[in-house]
Amino acid sequence: MAKKDKIRRPRAETPKGFRDYFGGDVTRRAEMLAKVAEVYHRYGFEALETSAVETVEALGKFLPDVDRPNEGVFAWKEGAQEGGEQDGDWMALRYDLTAPLARVYAQHRNDLPTPYRRYAMGPVWRNEKPGPGRFRQFYQCDADTVGAASVAADAEMAMLLADVLEAVGIARGDYVVRVNNRKVLNGVMEAAGIAEDDERTRGIVLRAVDKLDRLGEAGVHALLGEGRKDESGDFTEGARLDIDAVRTIEKFVHGTRIIQDQLEDVANQSRADPLPTSDVNNVEAVRYLRDLVSGSEIGLEGVAELEQIAALLEAQGYGPDRIVIDPSTVRGLGYYTGPVLEAELTFEITDEKGRPRQFGSVAGGGRYDDLVKRFTGQAVPATGVSLGVDRLLAALEMQSVAPAAPGPVVVTVMDRDRMGEYQSICARLRAEGIRAEVYLGNPKNFGNQLKYADKRGSPAAIIQGSDEAARGVVQVKDLILGARLAEGASLEEWKSHEAQTEVPLDGLVDYVKALLAR
Amino acid sequence: MAKKDKIRRPRAETPKGFRDYFGGDVTRRAEMLAKVAEVYHRYGFEALETSAVETVEALGKFLPDVDRPNEGVFAWKEGAQEGGEQDGDWMALRYDLTAPLARVYAQHRNDLPTPYRRYAMGPVWRNEKPGPGRFRQFYQCDADTVGAASVAADAEMAMLLADVLEAVGIARGDYVVRVNNRKVLNGVMEAAGIAEDDERTRGIVLRAVDKLDRLGEAGVHALLGEGRKDESGDFTEGARLDIDAVRTIEKFVHGTRIIQDQLEDVANQSRADPLPTSDVNNVEAVRYLRDLVSGSEIGLEGVAELEQIAALLEAQGYGPDRIVIDPSTVRGLGYYTGPVLEAELTFEITDEKGRPRQFGSVAGGGRYDDLVKRFTGQAVPATGVSLGVDRLLAALEMQSVAPAAPGPVVVTVMDRDRMGEYQSICARLRAEGIRAEVYLGNPKNFGNQLKYADKRGSPAAIIQGSDEAARGVVQVKDLILGARLAEGASLEEWKSHEAQTEVPLDGLVDYVKALLAR
Repeated sequence: MAKKDKIRRPRAETPKGFRDYFGGDVTRRAEMLAKVAEVYHRYGFEALETSAVETVEALGKFLPDVDRPNEGVFAWKEGAQEGGEQDGDWMALRYDLTAPLARVYAQHRNDLPTPYRRYAMGPVWRNEKPGPGRFRQFYQCDADTVGAASVAADAEMAMLLADVLEAVGIARGDYVVRVNNRKVLNGVMEAAGIAEDDERTRGIVLRAVDKLDRLGEAGVHALLGEGRKDESGDFTEGARLDIDAVRTIEKFVHGTRIIQDQLEDVANQSRADPLPTSDVNNVEAVRYLRDLVSGSEIGLEGVAELEQIAALLEAQGYGPDRIVIDPSTVRGLGYYTGPVLEAELTFEITDEKGRPRQFGSVAGGGRYDDLVKRFTGQAVPATGVSLGVDRLLAALEMQSVAPAAPGPVVVTVMDRDRMGEYQSICARLRAEGIRAEVYLGNPKNFGNQLKYADKRGSPAAIIQGSDEAARGVVQVKDLILGARLAEGASLEEWKSHEAQTEVPLDGLVDYVKALLAR
Repeated sequence: MAKKDKIRRPRAETPKGFRDYFGGDVTRRAEMLAKVAEVYHRYGFEALETSAVETVEALGKFLPDVDRPNEGVFAWKEGAQEGGEQDGDWMALRYDLTAPLARVYAQHRNDLPTPYRRYAMGPVWRNEKPGPGRFRQFYQCDADTVGAASVAADAEMAMLLADVLEAVGIARGDYVVRVNNRKVLNGVMEAAGIAEDDERTRGIVLRAVDKLDRLGEAGVHALLGEGRKDESGDFTEGARLDIDAVRTIEKFVHGTRIIQDQLEDVANQSRADPLPTSDVNNVEAVRYLRDLVSGSEIGLEGVAELEQIAALLEAQGYGPDRIVIDPSTVRGLGYYTGPVLEAELTFEITDEKGRPRQFGSVAGGGRYDDLVKRFTGQAVPATGVSLGVDRLLAALEMQSVAPAAPGPVVVTVMDRDRMGEYQSICARLRAEGIRAEVYLGNPKNFGNQLKYADKRGSPAAIIQGSDEAARGVVQVKDLILGARLAEGASLEEWKSHEAQTEVPLDGLVDYVKALLAR
């Protein structure tokens, strides 16, 4: 055996770009996901959980919501660990929940119902350079309908997103679901004469339109031409379109701006006064859009689909206060083929530099008709939504005023020979559903036991020496009150409250219940 | 671009050794884990969720419950995907939840409370040869107390396991938690003169003792000597101990058998008659064990610890009908350092060959005092339990007689122009918490819509043609009754039930609720 002092100790570090979640961060997410699952399930979706590992071949490289489709995955060669043979398949961690769905549907399509409606939730992994707020493992929570060509499936996704956001606690008025159709944008680009395979130019134009909200029409204009320098001096290359093309796109952008403003007015009105006061709605907005695609066939097809969606939304009473048609919504490049969705939280937060801004996107999705075709050769229409779980949780945390859930009641150990009795006291509390534990560290230093209880956020510590045991009582130390007193309570509070109370053992459960209910 | 017909299509296959979980298999696990988490939480444990990925260095190679500590993990070299630089760390998927806990505790020990009590649940990965029922990704669900040297922490783990099993639905009497102490076994081997570093011989002896239940004393005898040939003709190499060593071990094994038999009698008695009729209990059993370790110091230390544990269990009323001291319990090699636990389900099932056998182990754990030391150099006492989630789920499924949860009510599409109205009917049902969906496939063939509803396990299909719409009614097709009739119902059933009923739209929700409650 090697000498002990020669052994190099491993570093105890969370791997770069990954994170550990503690206590409430785990349980709050679980509670939120349970609420989302309940809505997905009520809408008729079935759970699916695929393994974290897929063959690289099956995964393909289709990242839905980033601009870099060749971004890396975590991959390894099967068998590479078993004595060096390198002839196995390349395996990888899934980077989203949609690629595994396409694989499962292609694999089981003869046994699954069509349409196949499934929801899935779980971690996904991306081998990206880690950065602030950018992690290599994060949760997604998706619902998809595979095998439904009807845009009724897309309209349902928009309504589903609205219902999910409200179910987890986002108030109506604090979010908006934006709906667009990639065919509309493709139509405008066709009308502007930008070739379908000129991916560079189309990319610049799409990104510019997507930023209309932030840059305004002037900013978009700059990006359609030579380019744009932002406040920090960074220069973004422009599309260098000719004057006719710029005019076509600008007409679309200008009309889009009018639609956005009108629908926002309507939304604000209906939030202030639920009785409708305007005849402008999503259906009207889409009708106006018909003029903006400059006669492009694919554009008109997109508008027709949006008209159907808007009519379905209107019929269910999902007005612009929840869902708006927004022709500037892009939602990633080269992935979606029809309707696209994006859910944004509209309440204001303060950014790192102290400036107010809207919270922004927490979910998105759309129609992707080509994913299953990779496997089977047959196009299978599909549409779905994906929740950014961590961002939505962060939003809920910002809005929440609820205090952290309390730690366990700690039964302290005065006399280590009476451990059985302390565990019995603990068992009484647990039997009544009260979270409790006996202090299991070294009981020698009693101060450490109380420090432990503080660190756990315990509402109370139970103390029983041999004297109390003989009399059938315990001391209950009120740690919530104790903490408040320590923070500087008024003289009256000091006088009117005892932070430690003697309670008969038989009355302990009731006493602690009252203390927790306070 | 390559020609389309030259593109090789990826195979749509679940990777070898992995599995996909559909529908109820996902939700039943989630429900079970929620019940387990509730018990863990009530006992004072805090949730922890680490990332799936760790550095190979931090993970080490300590598999807790298999005989092969060098079994593989899924690993890759960081940066290997980014242009071929190979200078990054080796990364790997976690193979259990304990190694990441040791890393987290070492990393955050100054901020975490001591003892640190945490629970964790999630998938783990093992790069093993897949086989029937042996998967490369599976769930674990653990609770551990780090930083508690007291065996009160181990006693608590045994009680926790019993409470968890009952919380998920295993009846008292259908399980037993076995408790032993590795120091007892090590003491017996010391007394038998088997050197501590003779891992091969110790391994053979431990495996033989572990199988006492199945092989009986004669089988163990053979394995202590030359070896044993089983019914199938397979030969297992023996330990080839000398005659004195065999006698020492056999005395222990014989005493163990007596303890097992006596405690089983007591357990059966107390199940039949809750009033105690015997003075034999775990405390008595351990006292008897004192004679069996042949004066070994480490063995006596182990017995003393078991005495404390037995006394604590007795004080809380956890008798041999739930938890037994069983000196034959081994629980893996070279990992645990003190008390060990194993939870077995005792109800009978039929194995692949049609023979009856007990369901067997579903959880285990014990004390492992050396894991954190790898990082910090300081020994940190720790103890914990791990649930075999898939096995426990399988057991619950075998015991359950509950029918599968119903699918969604399906609102069929008679007239695709009235999609908005069908979605409104659906929304009425959802608003009352009834799972429902509109058929989103191609509505042309109405038979396909009813086939879809059948495949989804729908309780009812809603049908509304233009005639029904004009009269404000819908047809409700009772698919549960329909299925029963199709399976061959009695003539009375045929006569007394209509499988399709006309219901006014306003009465639909109540009608469907009554149908679901039936």
